[in-house]
Amino acid sequence: MTTQLKNFFNAKSFCVIGASTTPNKPGNVIAYNFVHTFPGKTFLVNPRGGELHGQKLYKSVFEIEEKIDAACLVVPAKYATQALEDSGKKGIKNIIITTGGFSEIGEEGVLLQQQMSEIMKKYEMNVIGPNCLGLFSPELGIDTMFLPGTKLKRPESGPVSIFTQSGAFGAAFIDQLSRLGSAKWVSKFISYGNASDINETDSLEYVGNDSDTKMIIIYLEDFKNGRSFMQKAREISLKKPIMGIKANRTETGAKAGASHTAALSSNDAIVDDLLSDAGIIRVTTWDKLKDCVLVFGTQPLPLGDRIAIITDGGGAGVMASDMVSDCNLKLAEFSPIIQKNLDETFPSFYATGNPIDLTGSAVAEDYRIALEAAYEDPNVDSIVNLCIPVIPDLDINEFIQITKDIAKRKEKPFVTALVGGDEAVYGTKELMKDDIPVFPSPGRAVRALGMLTDYVKYLKKHGIDPRKVSMGEGK
Amino acid sequence: MTTQLKNFFNAKSFCVIGASTTPNKPGNVIAYNFVHTFPGKTFLVNPRGGELHGQKLYKSVFEIEEKIDAACLVVPAKYATQALEDSGKKGIKNIIITTGGFSEIGEEGVLLQQQMSEIMKKYEMNVIGPNCLGLFSPELGIDTMFLPGTKLKRPESGPVSIFTQSGAFGAAFIDQLSRLGSAKWVSKFISYGNASDINETDSLEYVGNDSDTKMIIIYLEDFKNGRSFMQKAREISLKKPIMGIKANRTETGAKAGASHTAALSSNDAIVDDLLSDAGIIRVTTWDKLKDCVLVFGTQPLPLGDRIAIITDGGGAGVMASDMVSDCNLKLAEFSPIIQKNLDETFPSFYATGNPIDLTGSAVAEDYRIALEAAYEDPNVDSIVNLCIPVIPDLDINEFIQITKDIAKRKEKPFVTALVGGDEAVYGTKELMKDDIPVFPSPGRAVRALGMLTDYVKYLKKHGIDPRKVSMGEGK
Repeated sequence: MTTQLKNFFNAKSFCVIGASTTPNKPGNVIAYNFVHTFPGKTFLVNPRGGELHGQKLYKSVFEIEEKIDAACLVVPAKYATQALEDSGKKGIKNIIITTGGFSEIGEEGVLLQQQMSEIMKKYEMNVIGPNCLGLFSPELGIDTMFLPGTKLKRPESGPVSIFTQSGAFGAAFIDQLSRLGSAKWVSKFISYGNASDINETDSLEYVGNDSDTKMIIIYLEDFKNGRSFMQKAREISLKKPIMGIKANRTETGAKAGASHTAALSSNDAIVDDLLSDAGIIRVTTWDKLKDCVLVFGTQPLPLGDRIAIITDGGGAGVMASDMVSDCNLKLAEFSPIIQKNLDETFPSFYATGNPIDLTGSAVAEDYRIALEAAYEDPNVDSIVNLCIPVIPDLDINEFIQITKDIAKRKEKPFVTALVGGDEAVYGTKELMKDDIPVFPSPGRAVRALGMLTDYVKYLKKHGIDPRKVSMGEGK
Repeated sequence: MTTQLKNFFNAKSFCVIGASTTPNKPGNVIAYNFVHTFPGKTFLVNPRGGELHGQKLYKSVFEIEEKIDAACLVVPAKYATQALEDSGKKGIKNIIITTGGFSEIGEEGVLLQQQMSEIMKKYEMNVIGPNCLGLFSPELGIDTMFLPGTKLKRPESGPVSIFTQSGAFGAAFIDQLSRLGSAKWVSKFISYGNASDINETDSLEYVGNDSDTKMIIIYLEDFKNGRSFMQKAREISLKKPIMGIKANRTETGAKAGASHTAALSSNDAIVDDLLSDAGIIRVTTWDKLKDCVLVFGTQPLPLGDRIAIITDGGGAGVMASDMVSDCNLKLAEFSPIIQKNLDETFPSFYATGNPIDLTGSAVAEDYRIALEAAYEDPNVDSIVNLCIPVIPDLDINEFIQITKDIAKRKEKPFVTALVGGDEAVYGTKELMKDDIPVFPSPGRAVRALGMLTDYVKYLKKHGIDPRKVSMGEGK
């Protein structure tokens, strides 16, 4: 199965069938993408012939003499069976069909999709789609996303692979990653739509075995084959984290889903158990998913569940500590020698326990002292750096520099929350340029560490040393 | 009790005791604030005399001949008892003590605070603090927040009153409101710190009776008097919504809190019941609190729990629908006539049920048609406007204009989620300029309506017609 997707990502030649001369139409955008980013050979097909993006438009695939490894079909649904048949005859074994108008629109479309399936079988083709965005890999220069760059910005190459049942989810998420920090996030993106052939299990297997993929993000509404998916996930989650959204959690959601990728909700409590058993970190909200990318994509795994919190606001420390409990984490107890140093270094009105509360009197240098102490303490597994920058003597630029210095070490998970207005937003932007994870609230920073730590607990339960799992921290 | 805080907010003269000539020191900032924003008479006191911000520095309160309604004490803790005694002798009845170094720092501070309490009693003073930010009201020109405007931006006048046990929480929240939409949010802000006299119940009573306050935000870690607070809340929550954070939910949080405002955690499940019984909308995260301000501060109350969702992405519709269930809301069933119109107007591949899925083929005008239909349908109580702007034919500026047109009506709660990258961020900024609530994910938009609807259910349970409760929609 894994070979199917390999055929696409390893293709040396790609053919765009339905290349369009109308600007911004899907067939125009995909042709543009291949002409401009694909390092292999690109062929464009349009029955009217002519030229597009400086390349010849073949009137049919049969005009092309060379062997074609893969094709993207961008023709309307009614012409799709013929185009697929032609591709089969031409010997193209790997086809992406982005067009919609199949099983997702009801009876008529279901019938059409069945006809397509028969052709696929006859010619032993691998098919992605229909009704999908297809594939995207910035490193390999493969991009069948039919939305122009002016609409959908492309992120750069990085550790995260994504596969999604919903193309719209995929597009929106890719768009978000394009403005998250350095934008260097994506390894492989797979949108398989109606999954007439290649499905969630194939996608999981491929990215699971892909050495450039350090973490896997999924969006599913249902399973084509739940059993094989869970089995595969159990293997892969011991090597790299899998996280994401399984929507259709509720009857209401299922009702909404029925009209779009023809998905049926199952008993969600069972799904929840199965996902957790397979080591998949399930999130239910978009915010959490973005937070996942930020920590799993930049931080090493912690070795345990002991958290140190450094703050300049007692209230923020309390909120963070509440979340420590909610996430089944512990507040670390500092080693005696570290504790003694903190007690002796800081004025008596600072709270030097955990959370370390530097109070509204804090200067940036206090953060350096506290953060370094926490970093050096073997009793601390992860560190939360909370700052409300409005306090009078805190220089935000010094705080940024100190945070950068600590973040560089990458020996322990280290997250920052900047809470407030202009200075908080400024600091966040500056730190995020270097992909240093910054959250807008104490709770979200702690929760991100909670997700990392949950994954470590899962690994340990299965006898895996978390130090052997490397994620995005090397990027 | 309510008269106590009235005395401060109605004060015609304010004295800053401990006015400092050192730039950016608390005593300097507070003096600056009063000189520049307070419409009444301001007196500045510093034992060295001289001049500050163009005003005379009195060497002591006794040098001032006029009657003084209220004072802000910004002297170090060790001089505070003397300053309070002097204020008492001078006949100042209303004192804000912003300085820290009292019960929050342990035994020595507890003793000091007791001495202060005796002086307060002797002179029958009303005291806010110590260890607090004190008061802020943009409309009344009262501002004892000792952080300079370069650090802590001030929001403008609006419907929201806030009281907080944690000064840091208050400062960070005020700072956030200063860059939320139009920044026109705050009516009264009360930070009472150690609550040696005026506490959470006094604050609640004051803002509850204040006609400019349309909604109340609270941050509490413990209660000085839980019973009277809940009793007061039960009355007020029938007139205007109260929402906020009761931190110290967990033992870990309580441990963190102990070192800061000397708060003790109680059994949180009981607290949860009591808050809910008193009609207080409890939120546990910062994000939710900001979302509360956005909906309660701009939208009318819904008359029921029936939600319409309009989307251009099936996946977003499914996630929103899942949240509809999570929040105990219902997907509205459109009236036959509205449904018929939708079916006839839109192409057959749009899903015209609820959610209305305009698909990736949507143009902005489709949104207008769908939104107007939902708005006009008596079966719809609230509307969620979801957009993933990357789709090829959607003009973001047209979408913004259509959203603005619908948002103006203010007859039904109407929330928008813009999900994606550059265009989503641009659209959010443009709409938020007019305080039109936009969320970054489908779930958060629905959840915001869930909170509004929960409040309506509470009102109805107590026989109150939600149409009689006006909030921030008139701003």
